[in-house]
Amino acid sequence: MRYTEDELIARLFAPMAGPAALGLRDDAALLPASRDDLVATVDMLVAGVHFFAGDPPGMIGKKALRVNLSDLSAKGAAPAGFLLSLALPCDWTNDWLEAFAAGLAGDARAYACPLLGGDTAATPGPLTISITVLGEARGRFVPRSGARPGDALYVSGTIGDAALGLAIRRDPDLAARLSPGARDYLLGRYLLPQPRLDLAPVLREHASAAMDVSDGLAGDLAKMMRVSGAGAVVELSRVPLSPAAREAIALEPALFEAAMTGGDDYEILCCVRGDPDAFEQAAQRACGRITKIGEAVAGNGPPAFLEADGSAKKFNILSFSHF
Amino acid sequence: MRYTEDELIARLFAPMAGPAALGLRDDAALLPASRDDLVATVDMLVAGVHFFAGDPPGMIGKKALRVNLSDLSAKGAAPAGFLLSLALPCDWTNDWLEAFAAGLAGDARAYACPLLGGDTAATPGPLTISITVLGEARGRFVPRSGARPGDALYVSGTIGDAALGLAIRRDPDLAARLSPGARDYLLGRYLLPQPRLDLAPVLREHASAAMDVSDGLAGDLAKMMRVSGAGAVVELSRVPLSPAAREAIALEPALFEAAMTGGDDYEILCCVRGDPDAFEQAAQRACGRITKIGEAVAGNGPPAFLEADGSAKKFNILSFSHF
Repeated sequence: MRYTEDELIARLFAPMAGPAALGLRDDAALLPASRDDLVATVDMLVAGVHFFAGDPPGMIGKKALRVNLSDLSAKGAAPAGFLLSLALPCDWTNDWLEAFAAGLAGDARAYACPLLGGDTAATPGPLTISITVLGEARGRFVPRSGARPGDALYVSGTIGDAALGLAIRRDPDLAARLSPGARDYLLGRYLLPQPRLDLAPVLREHASAAMDVSDGLAGDLAKMMRVSGAGAVVELSRVPLSPAAREAIALEPALFEAAMTGGDDYEILCCVRGDPDAFEQAAQRACGRITKIGEAVAGNGPPAFLEADGSAKKFNILSFSHF
Repeated sequence: MRYTEDELIARLFAPMAGPAALGLRDDAALLPASRDDLVATVDMLVAGVHFFAGDPPGMIGKKALRVNLSDLSAKGAAPAGFLLSLALPCDWTNDWLEAFAAGLAGDARAYACPLLGGDTAATPGPLTISITVLGEARGRFVPRSGARPGDALYVSGTIGDAALGLAIRRDPDLAARLSPGARDYLLGRYLLPQPRLDLAPVLREHASAAMDVSDGLAGDLAKMMRVSGAGAVVELSRVPLSPAAREAIALEPALFEAAMTGGDDYEILCCVRGDPDAFEQAAQRACGRITKIGEAVAGNGPPAFLEADGSAKKFNILSFSHF
């Protein structure tokens, strides 16, 4: 027997709910007034579009929350809680849903982001998850639009791993040519983002502008500079690549473009002016790796991506498009 | 040429956005801190499950927002804004999306509930809409769990119209036997809920417990009394029916059960103790029609629904189940 809706709520979802959820037994959640400004963001994930329907359900649950936490971290905000909409395909099982909920509950706890409320529905289509995350601005909201000419441009972690992980999922021949370590690393980076919440306080203190890299570095940088009214120059040789990404690109040089324009990095792209040393030290302590990749410049054109010889690289497609 | 994602945002969604949406050009919305407690609720609608895919797109947009506003009103809260997730099937057109956005924008304006943020995706499945509404508690949150023995039980408006509207959509023979006026009225009640936001201040002042009737009066009342730890007695002859519902039930007496247990009323069910006259007068001014249907009683059993002769009516299914 599959769980009834009441059982789902009581057994699977109530354990990840915070006090504001009122036991998931009311029409709405109630959050006490806060002196912090409120930050809100939403992301929808569709099976077969944003993840593979056969991925481990716990990883799917985690990813759906983490892509939103990544947005919060880019704004310098801290999580307050989330609301979940879940459309389940007709063939859902208790086992699947238990594993999904266990993954989600683990992250809700780990990131101090409890469930506030939700809605479940049946769908004749694919599994579809929409999560709204609410957060607290903690004194300063870091905008996308704050980049100015002269600001230094940084990214956290390494770029392109998730896009290469996806390429491997789609190309078994390529996967077979990679070392097992590199393959597993890239697959893991696609499967499960690591939101950079530890960077949030550092961004609040030092960043003039920030966003998370979810649709590809090249396109996301273009978005940030467009709303900032500035240009950017990036030295492609500085863009940080993991050893696994280097191995994949050595096998298939065309994958470099996928790494620069593919989605799902969930790293932070930010601008810093003033004291870059203080920022770099604080960011390194917070997230291990922070790399200056270029700078913001005057002008309204698209960002320039320079090869090692100084020539400009043209990408065929700047970023992942949702349509 | 279909709109790009950037065009969708700039042309269709930016016009319904409030200042907190930051032009829909950042990773998140930013709402200034408020002294009111925050109320949050989410509902997901799937084409073919919660509405017909061929319904007028403007009505679909309005319904998706209004079902959430109905939850807010039951809590005595006022709208602050909403976040939209929209999964579009592959064959979406600009015309469809323009009409959807126009309906939604009209309601966002009419209900002072601007867009805060959103996410769009393509889906191989049916159109799927998830809306999270944020609201302000304005001093008092009206819980589901506050009903106590002796409280009077009220509903706003009339019950069962939407369930009968759905029955007509599914049964053209029945539709043909109804007068055109009754048919149009019931179809309209299914297509487009009227959230009772005008009742919110009255509920804050007078109601001990409240919820909106979205899954059927019988089942929703059972939910409210269960979390309140009380029973209820309802006189079925008192449950307010529209002339159109009476006409349909006269043709098909079995439809009475559909009216009592079917979903999509989006009326308010509430408990009042103390001064029922003051409540009734204020509620009538706010929403036109408020009806006492019974009272809360001691005990933990399911609500009793009494026929005119005092015998208890048993419903086959108490309410709409999502699975």
